[in-house]
Amino acid sequence: MEDAWQKAYDFAVAVARKAGAEIRKAGESEIRVMTKSSTVDLVTKTDERVEKIIIGSLKEEFGEGTHCFIGEESVAKGEPCILTDKPTWIIDPVDGTTNFVHGFPFVAVSIAFAVNKELEFGVVYSCLEDKMYKARKGKLAFCDDEPIQVSDVKDINKSIIISEHGTDRSPEKVTKIFSTMQKILCIPVHGLRGSGTAATNMCLVATGAVEAFFEIGIHFKEAGGILLDVDGGPFDLMSRRMVSANNETIAKRIIKEIEIFPVVRDDAPIEKK
Amino acid sequence: MEDAWQKAYDFAVAVARKAGAEIRKAGESEIRVMTKSSTVDLVTKTDERVEKIIIGSLKEEFGEGTHCFIGEESVAKGEPCILTDKPTWIIDPVDGTTNFVHGFPFVAVSIAFAVNKELEFGVVYSCLEDKMYKARKGKLAFCDDEPIQVSDVKDINKSIIISEHGTDRSPEKVTKIFSTMQKILCIPVHGLRGSGTAATNMCLVATGAVEAFFEIGIHFKEAGGILLDVDGGPFDLMSRRMVSANNETIAKRIIKEIEIFPVVRDDAPIEKK
Repeated sequence: MEDAWQKAYDFAVAVARKAGAEIRKAGESEIRVMTKSSTVDLVTKTDERVEKIIIGSLKEEFGEGTHCFIGEESVAKGEPCILTDKPTWIIDPVDGTTNFVHGFPFVAVSIAFAVNKELEFGVVYSCLEDKMYKARKGKLAFCDDEPIQVSDVKDINKSIIISEHGTDRSPEKVTKIFSTMQKILCIPVHGLRGSGTAATNMCLVATGAVEAFFEIGIHFKEAGGILLDVDGGPFDLMSRRMVSANNETIAKRIIKEIEIFPVVRDDAPIEKK
Repeated sequence: MEDAWQKAYDFAVAVARKAGAEIRKAGESEIRVMTKSSTVDLVTKTDERVEKIIIGSLKEEFGEGTHCFIGEESVAKGEPCILTDKPTWIIDPVDGTTNFVHGFPFVAVSIAFAVNKELEFGVVYSCLEDKMYKARKGKLAFCDDEPIQVSDVKDINKSIIISEHGTDRSPEKVTKIFSTMQKILCIPVHGLRGSGTAATNMCLVATGAVEAFFEIGIHFKEAGGILLDVDGGPFDLMSRRMVSANNETIAKRIIKEIEIFPVVRDDAPIEKK
C-alpha cells in the first residue's frame, strides 16, 4: 500500500492548496460570521464551504466506501467522530477562524490521514502566508519543499513556548491557563507566543521557530517532534490534550508547569458532549 | 520643507529594505547571541551591525549636523536619548531580536522621523514576511503600496487585542501583565495575540487585523490609529507606555483593565536608569 499512500499524500497537498485559495478569495470579499458556541468561537460560511470542497475532492478520488472522513464542521454538527482502523481523513478546513474573520495572518488548512489509528501523513497549508507544510511518517518534513526540522535546544531557558488561550471563557479554565502560562514564562523562557492557530503552532515547532506547543481542549491534528499527553503519558489522538515539543527534555519541563483542567474527549458519545 | 521630508520618507523605505535584506542573510548563517540585561533580552551582532548600516546611510544622505539620531543599540550603550526639536531619526534596527534568534516569523526594521518632537513618518519593514509598512503624517498608510486602514469595530467583544509579556521577569510586573491580559480576555474579546515585535503589533493595528495594542515598558515608535497613554491621558513619546487602537471606544475600554506598573522613562538621566 506504500504507493497508494504516496498518491494520497500528493493529492492532499493539491487539495489543501485549492482550499487555501478559496479561503484567501473569501477573505477578500465580505466575511459573514455566524456564532457557534460563543462569540469567541467563530464559524464562517467559508469554513463549511471549504470543508465540503475538501471532502468532496477526497471522496471523488478515493471513494466513500473504503475511506472515512472526519471534518471539524461535520463533527460540530453532530456527525460521529470515531477513529477506526480504516484509512481516515481528518480535516480542519479553516484552522484559525477568528484569525480569518479579522485578517490576522495565520489561517491554515489542515488535512491529516490515519491508517490503523496511526497518522500516515499531515499537510498544513498556511494560506495567508502561502506556506505549504507537509510531513509523512518516517520521512522528512517540509515547508515549501525545503526540509525542516525541530530546534536542537535542550535548555528550557533558551526556548520559546507557544500555546493558546482557547475559546472557553469560563473563569476556572481561564485562570488555570493564565497561571500555567505565567509559571512557564517565569521558568524563565525566552518568550511565549500564540499564532491563534493550532496547526500553525505545530508547524512552528516543526520548523524550530519555537521549542514546544501545548494546549488542552484542541481537536486532534498531525504534528512533528515529540508528542505527549499534558500529564506526560502517551499522546492520545482523541483526548484533546497535547504537548508537542522538539525533544523530551523540553516537553517534560513544560509538563511540570501545566495545570490540567477537564475536557470532553473527541470520541465521547454525542449525548455527553 | 514638505519636499525634503518626502525625499527623507522615500530614502527611509529604501534603507529599511536594505537593512531587512541584511537581517534575512544573517538569519540564514549562524546566529551568535550575546546576553544584554538577561537571557530573555537578546541582542545579536546583527542588531548592532544593522543599526550601523542604517545610521551610516542616513548620516551620509542627510548629514550629522542638522539631523539627530536615536538608535536602540546606541541608547543601550549609554548614549543620550533626548528628543529635541531638530529633525530626528528614531531607529530600531531589529525589533524582535528574540524572534530573530529563533527564526520566529516577525522581525522588523523600524525607522521613524520626528521634527519639533512630532512624528513626520514611520517605516516598518517586516523582513521575514517581506512586508513594507509606511505612513506619513496626514497621508494614507500603506502595506506594500496598498492603502491600509484600522478596523471599524467599536464593539470590544468583537475585537482582538495584541500585547507582549515583555522581557522583565520580576514577579510583580509579570503578575500585573498576566492579570491585565486575563481581565481583557474575559471582557470577553475574540482573542489575545502577540507577535513578539512591537513594530509589527502596531502594523497589525494599522491593517485592521487587530483592534488594539498596549504595552508598558516599550521604547518609542511610530504607530497608526489613536495613541494614548495607558492611563487614558495623552500619549508621551518618552514614557514607554502606550495604547494604540483603531478608535477611542476600544482604547478606553482596554485602559479600564490595564494594571499600571512603573518604568523608567526613555529620557530619564542616565544615572537613574
